[in-house]
Amino acid sequence: MENYSEPIDRLINELSKLPGVGRKTAQRLAFHIINMDSNDINALAKALVDVKNEIKYCKICCNIADSEICSICSNDHRDSSMICVVEDPRDVAAMERTKDYNGKYHVLNGVISPMDGVGPEMLKIKELISRLGTGEVKEIIMATNPTIEGEATAMYISRLVKPMGIKVTRIAHGLPVGGDLEYADDVTISKAMEGRREI
Amino acid sequence: MENYSEPIDRLINELSKLPGVGRKTAQRLAFHIINMDSNDINALAKALVDVKNEIKYCKICCNIADSEICSICSNDHRDSSMICVVEDPRDVAAMERTKDYNGKYHVLNGVISPMDGVGPEMLKIKELISRLGTGEVKEIIMATNPTIEGEATAMYISRLVKPMGIKVTRIAHGLPVGGDLEYADDVTISKAMEGRREI
Repeated sequence: MENYSEPIDRLINELSKLPGVGRKTAQRLAFHIINMDSNDINALAKALVDVKNEIKYCKICCNIADSEICSICSNDHRDSSMICVVEDPRDVAAMERTKDYNGKYHVLNGVISPMDGVGPEMLKIKELISRLGTGEVKEIIMATNPTIEGEATAMYISRLVKPMGIKVTRIAHGLPVGGDLEYADDVTISKAMEGRREI
Repeated sequence: MENYSEPIDRLINELSKLPGVGRKTAQRLAFHIINMDSNDINALAKALVDVKNEIKYCKICCNIADSEICSICSNDHRDSSMICVVEDPRDVAAMERTKDYNGKYHVLNGVISPMDGVGPEMLKIKELISRLGTGEVKEIIMATNPTIEGEATAMYISRLVKPMGIKVTRIAHGLPVGGDLEYADDVTISKAMEGRREI
């Protein structure tokens, strides 16, 4: 590790705590920042501090929102009988891009991961359960990622929800469109075989 | 481009101005930052603002320093008859790692690059020339990078310095140690041929 001078070393240190930013990248960023305009640096610093203070979450689906209730939850044209459960706000954005789904969402804000010290009580699972009391919801679509943690979280929630008489489904796993069997991993191939349908 | 909510979009925007940070990376960083501890976010924001205000430059060599004169310039055991001219403080650190060089340095703080609007007057060239008046300096080693801009800067400075009767040298270019001729680019190979020495 190089030592430059206290303010730079401190900046390199703080930057290298970010995900995907190693020591070398942090150094490169720090030396770029030194030569940046003070106004730009202040704008970045302010955006960092503001994001935590100003961000709002929808009181219903826990997604990031501009107001108390997000635009999807407050939209009466969307089907309230389906809730698609996802890990984070980016997944809602990805799902919305397809323009295929017209139901509501619920954002867990993570997945159960004992390795990272994340238990079910740290996710927005209580909030999900409290939405199911009215009897309006007929189906919960578990769209957590196809990882060990995502699968475990889907399983955990389905065990909670099924006794309430609500259908719980899981999005399909298989070969991505345009993908190549030769380069697919074993688990994806066996999931694709398992989920095969008559044509 | 996704739209999340104003504070996040603003943060993504500011982050994506950093070098090597695209839209996707900025998004990933922003969503990580939302879940960070407020203290950590504030520490990062403070480090950003502080670096510009607190950083000091050596009055002699223009390197980053902890005091008015850096530890290399104030070291009497180092040879004051040689000045190694580099582009930025990281180059000094790289050179010092070799432990081979015992002279002084001069940090230009960039290279002449008309494409980026950087002219010679924006570099620490005046400061270099003013160090040469005493007659103590016998050799200037141009160690700018082997790029078009680095070569042009070396050439520009050598034309200024040579008339003062000071020897100007350029670090050697050639195949890196452990490199492979087969994978070297043409310019490197011709530089290596050009700089060949009798063995």
